[in-house]
Amino acid sequence: MDVPFTRAGVAGLGLIGGSLALALRQAGLSVTGYDIDTATVRAANTADIAASTTPDALFDTDILFIALYPDATIDFVRTHAARIKQGGLVVDCCGIKTRVVEALTTVAAENGFTFIGGHPMAGSEFGGFGAARADLFAGASFLLTPPDPQMPQLAPLETLLRRIGCVPNVTDPAHHDRMIAFTSQLPHALACAYVLSSSCPGHAGFSAGSYRDVSRVAHINPTLWAELFLENRDAFCAEMDEMIDHLQTLRNAAAADNRKSLEDLLKKARKRKELDNLQQR
Amino acid sequence: MDVPFTRAGVAGLGLIGGSLALALRQAGLSVTGYDIDTATVRAANTADIAASTTPDALFDTDILFIALYPDATIDFVRTHAARIKQGGLVVDCCGIKTRVVEALTTVAAENGFTFIGGHPMAGSEFGGFGAARADLFAGASFLLTPPDPQMPQLAPLETLLRRIGCVPNVTDPAHHDRMIAFTSQLPHALACAYVLSSSCPGHAGFSAGSYRDVSRVAHINPTLWAELFLENRDAFCAEMDEMIDHLQTLRNAAAADNRKSLEDLLKKARKRKELDNLQQR
Repeated sequence: MDVPFTRAGVAGLGLIGGSLALALRQAGLSVTGYDIDTATVRAANTADIAASTTPDALFDTDILFIALYPDATIDFVRTHAARIKQGGLVVDCCGIKTRVVEALTTVAAENGFTFIGGHPMAGSEFGGFGAARADLFAGASFLLTPPDPQMPQLAPLETLLRRIGCVPNVTDPAHHDRMIAFTSQLPHALACAYVLSSSCPGHAGFSAGSYRDVSRVAHINPTLWAELFLENRDAFCAEMDEMIDHLQTLRNAAAADNRKSLEDLLKKARKRKELDNLQQR
Repeated sequence: MDVPFTRAGVAGLGLIGGSLALALRQAGLSVTGYDIDTATVRAANTADIAASTTPDALFDTDILFIALYPDATIDFVRTHAARIKQGGLVVDCCGIKTRVVEALTTVAAENGFTFIGGHPMAGSEFGGFGAARADLFAGASFLLTPPDPQMPQLAPLETLLRRIGCVPNVTDPAHHDRMIAFTSQLPHALACAYVLSSSCPGHAGFSAGSYRDVSRVAHINPTLWAELFLENRDAFCAEMDEMIDHLQTLRNAAAADNRKSLEDLLKKARKRKELDNLQQR
């Protein structure tokens, strides 16, 4: 199928924006990028992405991806709203949706372009354009929260996302934010709380795969994730409360030497994970 | 270097015992195995391991590995103590050491053989001889808790373990159990508590690497891990308490909209993980 867009812009050339720029170019689009960081722009230019420290070239594109932190995403689109191409499409990449979608749907309507909330479910514990790869999104879910699931701009966007290897999934902002609190924010909080243990500095020689896997994303971007936790505070705290509650139940069963209760909890957990493993086959 | 033992026995041919049997045979030893499960013995025989549902052939070996659950390990060695070769070496593979070492050091002294506590730091969320591999221990730490670090039987055991790809690390039972509570038992409890969340059944399409990694070992063996948690109860509960405390601190910082405090906690976690990543290079 033909790519439904010719020219794409990407604001923010970190891990996500940089990977999007590389993937879109590989899919045959003409791509222009923007980043405030001179070294990032230089790295992008070296990788043959036409990037600049000024955003001017972004506004003449058919589709504009914003790959900035949530607050910066809202600020950027608000600041440049009048310059965005009439009839163009703007898609963000933020890990939270309710607040971003509320703010930008109105701005888009007032300025004659379309905004669709987006969240590519891919990443790495390493950031920056240096970690960007054209295949970062291969097989990854790209969550979309359009203001209206029947809007004509949605299908071409889905086609483009499939073209760069993503699986588009349409949902609504509130459901997105609750699920992401569980699937993404909670694991990051767990990894951080885990390595904060006073036992952690002595783990070498005593640790293997389960330490490695649970601690991996403790290599976190503190500014970004503090913002994500705070902007999704209610859902995040609800998930944290439920997690703490389950840990306390397991801990109390062990403290009370209650083997039956402990085994029952572990059996229930194993059944949940068995379903995952079956679905992945 | 020559292999310091000629004949090895392995009691229990699940993931760990099966992998040990395959690795020892690959290292040139004559290996005999024992398991109560007929299908397991058949599978081991098919893989050219001389295995039986009776333990008789184990007792004429130079080194005997016990790869059973903790209670079963103690029972097995106690039951067969009088038949174990005089001057022979017995090594267990349990994930907890204090209780096993206390029980079996005495039995060994009374019956003329040597016991050294062992714990190969390798595994998988899949169990049984069907998941066993000769290279399961490649590069893995093999923790050893000898009754005396100067004892003459230790060096040949370390040579053998290096020969099958392990890195032997000598420690004492109490330190072992506290560290393992953190590096192994806590991640298993976290994975189980995590998938018990009411949000878990709807995660498909919303999840990626961080969900996958933190939930992996929720595919747990409930009987084995309940036993491990209970037999290491004090250290396990201490680690759980510290984890719950750190989670609560993160949760409260988010609930109070305290960005500074949240960022400081995440920065501290990132610094810990940066040290890991540096050490691994």
